[in-house]
Amino acid sequence: MVLLTRRATFSASHYYWNESWSAAENERIFGKCANKYGHGHNYTLEVTVAGEPDAVTGFVVDLKTLKDVIERDVLDVYDHRHLNLEVPEFAKTIPTTENIAIAIWRRLNAGLNVLPSMRSAKLARVRIYETTEIFAEYRGESA
Amino acid sequence: MVLLTRRATFSASHYYWNESWSAAENERIFGKCANKYGHGHNYTLEVTVAGEPDAVTGFVVDLKTLKDVIERDVLDVYDHRHLNLEVPEFAKTIPTTENIAIAIWRRLNAGLNVLPSMRSAKLARVRIYETTEIFAEYRGESA
Amino acid sequence: MVLLTRRATFSASHYYWNESWSAAENERIFGKCANKYGHGHNYTLEVTVAGEPDAVTGFVVDLKTLKDVIERDVLDVYDHRHLNLEVPEFAKTIPTTENIAIAIWRRLNAGLNVLPSMRSAKLARVRIYETTEIFAEYRGESA
Amino acid sequence: MVLLTRRATFSASHYYWNESWSAAENERIFGKCANKYGHGHNYTLEVTVAGEPDAVTGFVVDLKTLKDVIERDVLDVYDHRHLNLEVPEFAKTIPTTENIAIAIWRRLNAGLNVLPSMRSAKLARVRIYETTEIFAEYRGESA
Amino acid sequence: MVLLTRRATFSASHYYWNESWSAAENERIFGKCANKYGHGHNYTLEVTVAGEPDAVTGFVVDLKTLKDVIERDVLDVYDHRHLNLEVPEFAKTIPTTENIAIAIWRRLNAGLNVLPSMRSAKLARVRIYETTEIFAEYRGESA
Amino acid sequence: MVLLTRRATFSASHYYWNESWSAAENERIFGKCANKYGHGHNYTLEVTVAGEPDAVTGFVVDLKTLKDVIERDVLDVYDHRHLNLEVPEFAKTIPTTENIAIAIWRRLNAGLNVLPSMRSAKLARVRIYETTEIFAEYRGESA
Repeated sequence: MVLLTRRATFSASHYYWNESWSAAENERIFGKCANKYGHGHNYTLEVTVAGEPDAVTGFVVDLKTLKDVIERDVLDVYDHRHLNLEVPEFAKTIPTTENIAIAIWRRLNAGLNVLPSMRSAKLARVRIYETTEIFAEYRGESA
Repeated sequence: MVLLTRRATFSASHYYWNESWSAAENERIFGKCANKYGHGHNYTLEVTVAGEPDAVTGFVVDLKTLKDVIERDVLDVYDHRHLNLEVPEFAKTIPTTENIAIAIWRRLNAGLNVLPSMRSAKLARVRIYETTEIFAEYRGESA
Repeated sequence: MVLLTRRATFSASHYYWNESWSAAENERIFGKCANKYGHGHNYTLEVTVAGEPDAVTGFVVDLKTLKDVIERDVLDVYDHRHLNLEVPEFAKTIPTTENIAIAIWRRLNAGLNVLPSMRSAKLARVRIYETTEIFAEYRGESA
Repeated sequence: MVLLTRRATFSASHYYWNESWSAAENERIFGKCANKYGHGHNYTLEVTVAGEPDAVTGFVVDLKTLKDVIERDVLDVYDHRHLNLEVPEFAKTIPTTENIAIAIWRRLNAGLNVLPSMRSAKLARVRIYETTEIFAEYRGESA
Repeated sequence: MVLLTRRATFSASHYYWNESWSAAENERIFGKCANKYGHGHNYTLEVTVAGEPDAVTGFVVDLKTLKDVIERDVLDVYDHRHLNLEVPEFAKTIPTTENIAIAIWRRLNAGLNVLPSMRSAKLARVRIYETTEIFAEYRGESA
Repeated sequence: MVLLTRRATFSASHYYWNESWSAAENERIFGKCANKYGHGHNYTLEVTVAGEPDAVTGFVVDLKTLKDVIERDVLDVYDHRHLNLEVPEFAKTIPTTENIAIAIWRRLNAGLNVLPSMRSAKLARVRIYETTEIFAEYRGESA
């Protein structure tokens, strides 16, 4: 089995805020991230698919297809967007790096598994860098 | 003369919008950047000071002092902020990478030139990366 | 004046070979680069334009337009190509990093200067990385 | 157990082409990679060995020895070469990133396991970056 | 389960020397690293914690707390220090990258597991880069 | 004229200390850098040569020759060394990044200008990164 990874980037805004808390409590827990004007990041996404390389093409998955799915299912929804205000899964869930990793996994897992070209390959790992200093990784519910 | 550079990073939101244009015109000119919910970036700032190294310390400028000025005059104002909505110089000026370079130059030039520890050193260059793909550089009005 | 830089990448093959020399002489001067099967690199290109930011848009040059010109005039010709065998300027000129910098400058200078959106801006610098260890920079005939 | 990784780089050409297909079919499946003049990359290789650090030296494996084996068994064969035309394992197998990962694993696994200095250490992982955007990882037949 | 990683850097000196060997033997085994004046590196540390994101905060672990523990338990002891001469665990153990990975794991595992804010999260992985070319990873005694 | 740059790296120890000051004064001015056990860095050096590419070879300077001079005149003296204690120019001069840039310029300028293969090329710039956050650049006495 080979793990094949494709990287992509998007730029988005977000804030951390719990509506059931006071402003003071939000600031105590979330610090500068609690600023409701929002701030943003250049996120780097790494999507890893696992499978056997096809005997004819040498591909675990066609990288052009993988790129198209990442663009359609993630970048078109997240890039140049405000995650809290424009992306449905973060309407009530705080878009921490951890939660973004899970949300992108769910989006890609749904989008990739119906592809004929995925054959026996499976989504194995989603890693998301908020900055070069902080990143989260998710491998699915069963991992 | 030696050029000494210190790098710093901040995360901020912005959008591109000209109030005198229609929404359609803003979208035609600014594309995805015209989304008024805002989007954001991890900006990387490089501040370059030029001067002779001090014969005793070997410093063009004390890097701790330089860091403190960058934090006080730039990071405290820009980091985890929405540039259009919270930073005065972008109330009516679009925070493009070019304009951010000029604005940071002006902030630092004012802050650095009053420092006794700058001695004969001078701000020489401000470079700002919006992403790893795009950056702007400004060397002052006379350059 | 602000310098605005956009980065792009392309992957290409090349070799170093002087037809008027013997194979032994080519190997003596060019070492491993003289292998006529070719070898290749991921080139990173940085294109820098200099000008005043437009008072309305804040742009020295529209980055989408700049990207389109880089794609049309450089990437479409160089990317996934063999520089010696497929790119006309290297039919008789060895595609060293130095010569690639000059060739890309000439292509972009011709392509950019006819753009209305360049207004008063001018191509200022072309930098090309052959690897992270080696890069060449060209600023035009008059620099 | 500690995983110890050493990185190396090489520059090579390749193309994607299936001799049993028409040119049109090759272009449909492989796109720009089907150009038979070849194109190239700066590959980055990460070789990971797993084992207990030696109580006296603190080494899982002597890094100088590991470097020598990588140079002898991989770089001397792949660097500044055309993978399809000069490297035996790609005479009939397409040198996709996935297949390169497997081929390098096999080369290193054979070369490393006979080393006395590997003691109880074992090759654990080969990761190969074709570009910063695309990489493949292989952990051996049994992984 | 999500893996959350925070990166940190420190600069330190070290040398490789076995007191029970002759100088010649130290040089034969450790090469340039045997220079007892010491040499140094900018180490990059990646600390990975595994757990379920908290339903309210979205955090596996509060990153500010994690940063504080890394600073207190690792950076305050290692940064701008000579590892052999100033850090107790390397008084008799050679500070190879492998041994530094284990030592930092032990420091952080002790410091993190007593934190109330770690809740169900656990230290999962310590990765340490001596240079961009060499890194070691440790996942604990039971891994 | 083309600027051609080659990068190299070395790892070294140093400290900042002025013998004519008290320990307290050294610590006040130099902070953590005043630790006389020393600390260290992975330095990245960029050496830039300016000239016309040769009409036959396409080289401003032969990169193998440039690499050899950098190794002989800089790396053999600085790499895996304690700058204060083993490198003559820092016996009485503090090895700040600024002073290292000047010292390497002087070493390379002497070494390069006697090379026949430099022809009309000249050393144009030395840039030295102490970390990714801090770098100094020197262009010679007349710049």
